[in-house]
Amino acid sequence: MGKQSGYDLVLTGGAIVTMDSDRKLVENGFLAVKEDRIAALGPADTEEAAQAASLAKRVIRTEGKVLVPGLINAHSHLAMTLFRGFAEDLVLQRWLEKIWKYELTMLDEAAIRAGSSLAFAELLRCGVTCAHDMYWHYMETINLAEEIGFRLVSGPSFTTIGDFDFDQMLLTGRCVLEDLEGYDFILPVMQAHSTYTTSAAMMGEVLKLKQEYGVPFTTHASENRQEVDDVLARFGKTPIQLLDEYGLLDDRTILAHCVELQDEEIQLLADTGTHVAHCPESNLKLGSGIARIADMLEAGVSVCLGTDGPASNNDLDLLGELRTAALLQKGFTRNPEVFTTTQAMEMVTVNGARAYGAESFLGSLEVGKKADVVVINLEQTHMTPLHDICANLIYSVNKYDVETVLINGDIKLEDGVVTCLDEEEAKAEVRAVAGRFV
Amino acid sequence: MGKQSGYDLVLTGGAIVTMDSDRKLVENGFLAVKEDRIAALGPADTEEAAQAASLAKRVIRTEGKVLVPGLINAHSHLAMTLFRGFAEDLVLQRWLEKIWKYELTMLDEAAIRAGSSLAFAELLRCGVTCAHDMYWHYMETINLAEEIGFRLVSGPSFTTIGDFDFDQMLLTGRCVLEDLEGYDFILPVMQAHSTYTTSAAMMGEVLKLKQEYGVPFTTHASENRQEVDDVLARFGKTPIQLLDEYGLLDDRTILAHCVELQDEEIQLLADTGTHVAHCPESNLKLGSGIARIADMLEAGVSVCLGTDGPASNNDLDLLGELRTAALLQKGFTRNPEVFTTTQAMEMVTVNGARAYGAESFLGSLEVGKKADVVVINLEQTHMTPLHDICANLIYSVNKYDVETVLINGDIKLEDGVVTCLDEEEAKAEVRAVAGRFV
Repeated sequence: MGKQSGYDLVLTGGAIVTMDSDRKLVENGFLAVKEDRIAALGPADTEEAAQAASLAKRVIRTEGKVLVPGLINAHSHLAMTLFRGFAEDLVLQRWLEKIWKYELTMLDEAAIRAGSSLAFAELLRCGVTCAHDMYWHYMETINLAEEIGFRLVSGPSFTTIGDFDFDQMLLTGRCVLEDLEGYDFILPVMQAHSTYTTSAAMMGEVLKLKQEYGVPFTTHASENRQEVDDVLARFGKTPIQLLDEYGLLDDRTILAHCVELQDEEIQLLADTGTHVAHCPESNLKLGSGIARIADMLEAGVSVCLGTDGPASNNDLDLLGELRTAALLQKGFTRNPEVFTTTQAMEMVTVNGARAYGAESFLGSLEVGKKADVVVINLEQTHMTPLHDICANLIYSVNKYDVETVLINGDIKLEDGVVTCLDEEEAKAEVRAVAGRFV
Repeated sequence: MGKQSGYDLVLTGGAIVTMDSDRKLVENGFLAVKEDRIAALGPADTEEAAQAASLAKRVIRTEGKVLVPGLINAHSHLAMTLFRGFAEDLVLQRWLEKIWKYELTMLDEAAIRAGSSLAFAELLRCGVTCAHDMYWHYMETINLAEEIGFRLVSGPSFTTIGDFDFDQMLLTGRCVLEDLEGYDFILPVMQAHSTYTTSAAMMGEVLKLKQEYGVPFTTHASENRQEVDDVLARFGKTPIQLLDEYGLLDDRTILAHCVELQDEEIQLLADTGTHVAHCPESNLKLGSGIARIADMLEAGVSVCLGTDGPASNNDLDLLGELRTAALLQKGFTRNPEVFTTTQAMEMVTVNGARAYGAESFLGSLEVGKKADVVVINLEQTHMTPLHDICANLIYSVNKYDVETVLINGDIKLEDGVVTCLDEEEAKAEVRAVAGRFV
């Protein structure tokens, strides 16, 4: 008995999509949390489960619901919530110009904090417990994440966009990477905007920092034809070839987008273990095209999923993004057998965790991992009948079906209410900031 | 005063996307209902609006919300809710075989009624007030729609699938078309499954009935490459060419899918005024491909939107379908300027109404039209900020933002609760039927 009696929380009676190495589905399961970890998990109709529940500090009944690992949004620009719906029906260059004008002149730290706060609420509402962020005044977003206990992948970012001073960037980057070691909820990452907004010298320093601090690296790459053409014209290589030359392709690198890849580039990503953060809705909306994800999976590339920023999506709904990703690959390849429901679930769980070096503690529901758990209602009209839990989770689920979200075993969303921040205040602040964009 | 004093319901204080011929957006508007019609509509900050509200039998405040016309789902197989998630990751032929086996042996009228009931609840929840249906035991669905006051486009269907008797079909078809004249909520339509499951003789009779009863006609056409190849091999013509030969292409015909069209076929549809019911998610999921909707709109084809059946989607969420349609055309054409927010809204409102000959009383919010009205919350986190109402309605909205739905001025969904049928009972019945599919 003794061992179980200390559980802080037991969730019992519902299905569990574990995403463990067997991709096991427990039809009627229980999951026990002790402190910040998953302490036990198994069938609910056992003596062990009954005792665990009877002695836990709190029990949440999950009949008619499913537990899934906290979802991982592998690429985003969170505070761009401020620009949701602000630049519609525009080609990429005009879209960027419109957004940049405001980003470079009107975004202060308070604006970023407001936009990030709204983003965290939106992410929790769709079952995301860990998200990547690359944006201006990123320390505001990092500090807010740490404050509310939301898992954030972020870190210093290098770019020539705006009023930049490379030496200062390097110095700041180094300080930030050192500071981040003291944070509980931040997964540090080195970032560069892209090959077309950085130089070889800059990327050389990025590589050094990456190696010195042992952190992953992420950048945008081959988002559309124009980018590839521009980089080819300027450097004589595609963005992927250039990153390879920089020594930046390995299993600690995550490339966002990768829409415009040749066969040999896909093979190079597979051979080097480089991860791809697929952002299908943003790629569609900006007219960039459709990434060859089915081919990448076939070649053995590890693919995770991101929403990109809400100005080109226009939301942070990773469940919706997953549905789009799955539908799109079947239609694009004209082969409904590609991109199975299992592969889809992997993108937002284990693959995201592996990409950012967190596979030992995130990405699946297994004893010993962090208790980042999402409870999803399976009984709504659009989820009925329930022939296939995974199919319903990918093709029929709605983010409003997400009822409860735990991070480190702490409840961040309960019965549809965000408990770790003031959502109404975030909305009011975002409206106030956005009201100045005219 | 007298005129206004009889209003049954006034909705006031919110935005109104009228979809009238000017595509007018009223920022702060009121809409008054008398009996089954829209009796007044205009700005809310006027004496007229204040008096209308003060004397109406009931007032619904709509601050922070938007009124849109009841949405029209132009192609579906409603009771296929029973098969949601039942046939995953399969190529079309294997998908059909798996579904047909159960359709032909296990679907009785009670099963169809259960599946349709669930479908109506699901449709109301995403703001759909009028839906097309083509399915087995269609009179069950028709009678249920009439009973609950849901607007249904349906009618006799011709096909050689299953155990068919053409003379009996004709006789039944004639009787049904005559009977439907006595229904209030049914928009009659002649239906044929496809050119590959009908004969020239059968289609000749369809044409006669279509002309005799003055009803529109709908069929599946050019859904994928295989269909076009099969029809070419058997008839020496593509499905579109064959329908043209049958004399069935005109502005009273709606073709579902049209994924696999040549330039000259698009031109033929434009020249004849033939409508296309676009079903992007089903086309993606079954690996059929991506219809050239941007090209069709450019050529002047009238395009409406359908979800297709929930076994290949896997839901009836027309708002989600609209988002997919818009994203997809921008990405597919690599041109973000195509498929504007206005064109997107037209597909699910005025274009759907025109396709089924209902433009005089459905499809827009205008005085004299039927009071089919949807109230959508604009203040949720994922809808904040509100830079552009139509962009948020297409790219950020969630079906749970649909709060209230009126058909003929009667409330069918209120504060998220379906009022015209027992949703829990429908779910239980669907689970019971679906439980037999093993």
